Amino acid sequence: MIVYERPIRFDEVDPAGIVFFARFMNYAHEAMENFFSDLEGGYAGLIQTRKIGFPTVRLEADFKIPLRYGDMLRVETSCSKLGNTSATFVHEMRSTPSGEVCAIVRHVVVTVTLGVLEPRAMPDDVRAKFVAHLRA
Amino acid sequence: MIVYERPIRFDEVDPAGIVFFARFMNYAHEAMENFFSDLEGGYAGLIQTRKIGFPTVRLEADFKIPLRYGDMLRVETSCSKLGNTSATFVHEMRSTPSGEVCAIVRHVVVTVTLGVLEPRAMPDDVRAKFVAHLRA
Amino acid sequence: MIVYERPIRFDEVDPAGIVFFARFMNYAHEAMENFFSDLEGGYAGLIQTRKIGFPTVRLEADFKIPLRYGDMLRVETSCSKLGNTSATFVHEMRSTPSGEVCAIVRHVVVTVTLGVLEPRAMPDDVRAKFVAHLRA
Amino acid sequence: MIVYERPIRFDEVDPAGIVFFARFMNYAHEAMENFFSDLEGGYAGLIQTRKIGFPTVRLEADFKIPLRYGDMLRVETSCSKLGNTSATFVHEMRSTPSGEVCAIVRHVVVTVTLGVLEPRAMPDDVRAKFVAHLRA
Repeated sequence: MIVYERPIRFDEVDPAGIVFFARFMNYAHEAMENFFSDLEGGYAGLIQTRKIGFPTVRLEADFKIPLRYGDMLRVETSCSKLGNTSATFVHEMRSTPSGEVCAIVRHVVVTVTLGVLEPRAMPDDVRAKFVAHLRA
Repeated sequence: MIVYERPIRFDEVDPAGIVFFARFMNYAHEAMENFFSDLEGGYAGLIQTRKIGFPTVRLEADFKIPLRYGDMLRVETSCSKLGNTSATFVHEMRSTPSGEVCAIVRHVVVTVTLGVLEPRAMPDDVRAKFVAHLRA
Repeated sequence: MIVYERPIRFDEVDPAGIVFFARFMNYAHEAMENFFSDLEGGYAGLIQTRKIGFPTVRLEADFKIPLRYGDMLRVETSCSKLGNTSATFVHEMRSTPSGEVCAIVRHVVVTVTLGVLEPRAMPDDVRAKFVAHLRA
Repeated sequence: MIVYERPIRFDEVDPAGIVFFARFMNYAHEAMENFFSDLEGGYAGLIQTRKIGFPTVRLEADFKIPLRYGDMLRVETSCSKLGNTSATFVHEMRSTPSGEVCAIVRHVVVTVTLGVLEPRAMPDDVRAKFVAHLRA
């Protein structure tokens, strides 16, 4: 599990006073960027130098309680399934300091060569990262 | 089925040249706003005057092919399940002019009283709208 | 003057119930995309096929009255200054149906070759478009 | 001067590979939120508990060099002018580790009572914050 924390920003909150549901998918991507941050060059290096991307092919989210302005977002990220070219991320999104689960986002990503967007083998350092954070 | 169409905007496209996956959830909400647009005051009237909201409690999306800059987005919205306070939207998102399905987004919304965010009965005009667009 | 109109979307409204100020810059870009929409391939064709871009180098905005959810956005776009490689857009942003000016956004763009991001001569069809909508 | 730093996120980068110009205004607001973060309840407390807001009435930005994916954003925020109800923020936005200035954003905010959006006197703790970071 890798933990990612940051404050909720004003421009992420909707007129009803809660974080807009689509934003949780942006949070999932941020958490994925953070998940890969200690690879050589980080996620930006994967994209820009190595030309490897991880488009989402399947997404599921359950929303439990609203996340409000003034809360801190805490995302706990792990991998629930690992294939040859694909992997499933699970992000438990909590409000801190209460620690309550606000949303659970799962998304399946496929390793592709950017440009052509065609599936390719997952690089060893990427696979090792998923293995290290595979759920029991 | 209610159809919603608009161009893809530059700021919705990611560095890989395709619409960022989280954006499809914004499109789903736009399509929902459009779905309710001919109610008295539209979706804005529901929110602001009638103080009724429809937070998403469950979300699923399947991504088939990328949506690219220069494409026109076409969303075909219907209802696949209708309960006392909840409803399930199905949005088929296509690229035009090709007509190919790019993504299918399903989300379950619950009718709530804004402010307290507590479930309430679905108003008759909202229910009638769902019934009119219920999938066979 | 070229006119661009669309509804305000729920996810553009902040917790104070008005359009978030940064969004007006997104509107300015949308209006620019619309300004170029009848060129061959539109703005997407400029970017993707012709590899020509128009980054903003200077921006000014005055906010007069708030734009609210339920309002329709109307942007009236013209050019106030035209150079060899640069041009100044003026966008008068109004709320309809009232017609009141909500914001005036001016931005200076420079014609560049994408990738290297270096200034280049403005293509004739782009220049003609600015000339046709040059303010007296 | 108050410093705010965070990574550039993937979804902030446009198809040309640089941070979309409108995003810098979101960064300005984030820096403003950070500027007020050590007031009682932070910016969220101002908005939600004290019902005090700071809408932008005037905005100016100069873009020097592009900010790229993989860069870290560093914003140095100070106040260049202080009135009875208004204040002018200056945000120097740099790319780190190079330290180069990418953009300078200035915006004038007015203290208002939320809801009615009418000007009101600036609270003492807010004024003290501006005074402490007033440019020579």
